[in-house]
Amino acid sequence: MNEFPIFELGEEPGWKVLGSQSLYEGPYIQLRETQLQSPAKGEVTWTVAHRKNAVIIAPRLKDGRFVMIRQERFPVQLTLWEFPAGQIDSVETKSNPETIVDTAIRELQEESGYRLSDNPDDLHPLGYFFSSQGFTNEHAYLFLADNVTPASEGSHHDESESIVEVGFFTPDELKAMIANNVIRDGNSLSLYARLVSRDLI
Amino acid sequence: MNEFPIFELGEEPGWKVLGSQSLYEGPYIQLRETQLQSPAKGEVTWTVAHRKNAVIIAPRLKDGRFVMIRQERFPVQLTLWEFPAGQIDSVETKSNPETIVDTAIRELQEESGYRLSDNPDDLHPLGYFFSSQGFTNEHAYLFLADNVTPASEGSHHDESESIVEVGFFTPDELKAMIANNVIRDGNSLSLYARLVSRDLI
Repeated sequence: MNEFPIFELGEEPGWKVLGSQSLYEGPYIQLRETQLQSPAKGEVTWTVAHRKNAVIIAPRLKDGRFVMIRQERFPVQLTLWEFPAGQIDSVETKSNPETIVDTAIRELQEESGYRLSDNPDDLHPLGYFFSSQGFTNEHAYLFLADNVTPASEGSHHDESESIVEVGFFTPDELKAMIANNVIRDGNSLSLYARLVSRDLI
Repeated sequence: MNEFPIFELGEEPGWKVLGSQSLYEGPYIQLRETQLQSPAKGEVTWTVAHRKNAVIIAPRLKDGRFVMIRQERFPVQLTLWEFPAGQIDSVETKSNPETIVDTAIRELQEESGYRLSDNPDDLHPLGYFFSSQGFTNEHAYLFLADNVTPASEGSHHDESESIVEVGFFTPDELKAMIANNVIRDGNSLSLYARLVSRDLI
């Protein structure tokens, strides 16, 4: 089905950055206007929102239920059920595997109060995805974490976050929440797509 | 499983915009710093990227194969296989149903060269999702379009776009492309999650 090569992040030939000017520089987002050369289109000028990479984790208990958090999301003014997630504290285009896994471990505990099992095989990397590839370089690494257990220290939320509830859902409940638009964030939906496509759920 | 009410966009009580200042104003993105009151957290100040809403369509042929496009994505410097998608030409927080469906019909043909069947039951609305709910209000409405057929006029790409290929994939091929990180954009993955959760694939 694929007669064409599939390239990893930063590895597709024919792309070249010709120039770039800052439009806005803030702690959470940098906006740049960039002149690019692309393999097919040639020269283009594009406004790109630069953001830190992120990690999204689907934590699963021994009994098969998933751990989810309900979080206030200020840009959309809604409180949403989501898989735990967090930003990687580095602005590299491509994050290194150790930093990614460290972030997954930290964010899982901080947001949900659950921790990884001691068996490294319980952490399944499921690739990554771009949240909005037409306007930002933001991308997030996806994981399934099996056999998570309550952390003795509990959760420890970042001051800027507002997590109001932790919940536990069977695969059937999760499926119904997605079907009914209860779960409606790209992070959780993309991670679910990867879980299903790899027959992990 | 849900002892809590689920609110639609713009309908959750307890939210209030207290103030908002423009940080950057461009044709594709508006950045604002906004002071909000939230139900649980109280007063917060947040940087929000405002973007037009979008529509994502999974077009399916009579033989069960899905129509996808391969498109150059400038912010991530990759050429990606995706479901056809396009922005709604309106900046309303919540788009009205007719505008959404009109955009779906137009974008499907413009991007893929395929058109909707004459049977309105072939267009299945699958809710919406937020692309990156921590930093933008951008959200996209999801559809399955069954029994699409080639449009006599063919495709008609927007000048700013760079669609290099149209392809046809069976459900098994689609699943393998998602499992193997070939499909890695939030639009296509979120739409796939909805298709699976509603047993439409």
